[in-house]
Parts: sequence; C-alpha cells; structure tokens
Amino acid sequence: MTIRYPGGKKYSPRSDKLNSRLAQKKSLQYANRGMTLEEDLNETNLYYRQIGRAVIHKKPTPVQVVQVDYPKRSAAKITEAYFKQPSTTDFNGVYRGKYIDFEAKETKNKTSFPFGNIHAHQAEHMKNVQEHGGLSFLIIRFSQFEETYLYDASHFLQWYFEQSERKSIPKREIEKAGHFIPTTFRPRLDYLSILDQFYLSM
Amino acid sequence: MTIRYPGGKKYSPRSDKLNSRLAQKKSLQYANRGMTLEEDLNETNLYYRQIGRAVIHKKPTPVQVVQVDYPKRSAAKITEAYFKQPSTTDFNGVYRGKYIDFEAKETKNKTSFPFGNIHAHQAEHMKNVQEHGGLSFLIIRFSQFEETYLYDASHFLQWYFEQSERKSIPKREIEKAGHFIPTTFRPRLDYLSILDQFYLSM
Repeated sequence: MTIRYPGGKKYSPRSDKLNSRLAQKKSLQYANRGMTLEEDLNETNLYYRQIGRAVIHKKPTPVQVVQVDYPKRSAAKITEAYFKQPSTTDFNGVYRGKYIDFEAKETKNKTSFPFGNIHAHQAEHMKNVQEHGGLSFLIIRFSQFEETYLYDASHFLQWYFEQSERKSIPKREIEKAGHFIPTTFRPRLDYLSILDQFYLSM
Repeated sequence: MTIRYPGGKKYSPRSDKLNSRLAQKKSLQYANRGMTLEEDLNETNLYYRQIGRAVIHKKPTPVQVVQVDYPKRSAAKITEAYFKQPSTTDFNGVYRGKYIDFEAKETKNKTSFPFGNIHAHQAEHMKNVQEHGGLSFLIIRFSQFEETYLYDASHFLQWYFEQSERKSIPKREIEKAGHFIPTTFRPRLDYLSILDQFYLSM
C-alpha cells in the first residue's frame, strides 16, 4: 500500500544509507551556515568594500515592469512584472584598477558543471570582457561537496564554444584548471586573494 | 474668469514669446528625436558593443520582489514589488582595460545641477571607484538647452562634500570643468572619445 501525505506526495521511509548521507550533508551545511553561494559572495563583497579592498557589487535581477500603481501617500507599487533573462553576468566592479566581472553558479551535479547554467549571451559577454582587458571568470560551487572554485573564463569559453557537444565540463577539469576557494570566517570566500596569486602581478 | 481644462488644470493662453520658445525647443528636440538621456546612452552603448569598442551596460533598476505567482504553463508573474533606491551608479563596464562607472542625470533646471539628483551612497560609491583606480564621472543633460556634459567625479565630489551647503553646482562650472558631448547620429553621445582625449593617454 502506498502511503501519501495530505498534499498527495508519496511517503517512502528513508533508508539508513540516505539518512546517514543527509546527516553528513547537514553537518557540511552547518560548516557553511546554510548560506547560498550568492549570500556568501554578497557578504564577501560587503566586507571587501568595508575594508576598502575592492568595489564589487551584485547587479540587480532584471525585471520587466508592466504595471505600476501609485497609491496616495505611499510608495509606488509594482503590480505586474516578469523576470527577464540577464544579458550580462551577475557581479562586476573594480579591484586594483582592474575591471572584474564574474558569474556565480551552484550545481547539485556531482561529476560535472552543466553548460545549461550559462546562457549564450552571458558567455558572449565574458568573451567581450576578456577582449577589452577585463578579468572574467566563474565562481562555481559543487553544492553536494560544498566545494567552491574560481574558474577562469578562458578555460570555460574553450569548453563552451569548442566542445559544446559535451554540454558540461567535468568536475576534475575544474579542480585541475580552476582554483579552490576555501570557505573562511571573514571574508567568506576570499576570491580576490586567488586573483592576486594567479592573475594579477603583485 | 479662470478657464479650466476638464482635469481641473488652469488654462492660460500662451504668450507669443512662449510660443516662439516652444517652437525653438521643438526643433531642438527634433534634432534629438525626443529621446531621453538614458535612451541615448543605451543606444550609444549598444553601438560601442556592436563595433567592439567597449563593454558598458546599464544596470537593471533594483526592485524588491515581495510576491510572485507561479501560474501553470506560463512564466512566473511578480504581483507585488517596490522600487529600491540604487546603491551604486547606473552604468558600468570596461573600456581599454579600464573600469568605467558613471551616473546619467537630466535636469530641467536652467542655471544649475541640483545635488538632490544624487543620493549620498551614490556619491560615496563614486569616491570609492576613484580610489580603486576606476574612471568615475557624471553625464549631465540640461534638458532645456539639450546640452550634455561629461563631468568628472573628482570635480563633482568636491562640490558635493565640501560645498554641500550650496545644494547645487552652477551650470557655468559644469560648462567650464566638464566636457560638452555633441549629439551625433552614431553613436548618439560619443563620451568615450572625451575619455580618450582628456582622461586616457592614447
């Protein structure tokens, strides 16, 4: 007999193996205080701004506003709007005089980073940024392992445009050509130190 | 007797002087095809990207999303949201390896540019960008004259922070220390040539 929750979802008892995996995941999440990659990066960037190290912000999510109400004596209220596909990457700013531009993505995939996470015009944007002398990269988190990597756009674009039939980049390639970013207390993800070490002469 | 429009607005016959001014303004507007400064800059930046001269975008307007509906078989619909005050400037990107960051503002004021157009944290942002080696400036349009100027942040910040009791910058100061940007066919407002000439060594 199938037992169902009130919502209609099937009830299936958890196996011991799954339980232990969940416990493991929970402890890993605790290490990261359960924050998403975006939250970690926002906190990191805020810290960088506070100590005067860099000026890097997340861009607002693009929204197509269709209808706005202007009630008397209160703020304009948007009553109809839709999310738009972003035409650029999520984060940009300035560090040591350099233009910094990156996209941050989490994947639950354990063995590879699927291209589906990046739109074609975002890849195009990264290419353009590189051509104009900016520093362009991805920050990729494999959430199942709580591992975060800085992966240079030049590597990414090679896979994306030249080996696009693959539809993904193997995790081991990102481990090899990318740079592991340790999660620390403050800043949460010190990716600028990676740039110092590998991409900017001191 | 006061004549009123159906909406309640007072009717006052136009003087000949006003009529001739309006005619003049109309012909000027025609020269600019009635576009706003933001439209002119978006068109300019699109052109710069198309010819591979620079990668500069307008940031999306920040919106605080409160309520989203997820209708079956159609796109997520935002049903309650509010405009947020931006914490940075409107435009940024990369040109000749340099980080470019600016705010664009139109004013109807004929004699000065009021500080009220710029929030304190936007001014703070411009200061930070300068300190980190980015190029920060304002593009100011005096819409009554259809005159557009590039005005360096260092000038602006001096007035803003050191002479803040004034609450505005005289137009003649912007004419003197700023750089007039002619409105041309393509690009609409070639502000990068101003940067080439005055702020970037060739």
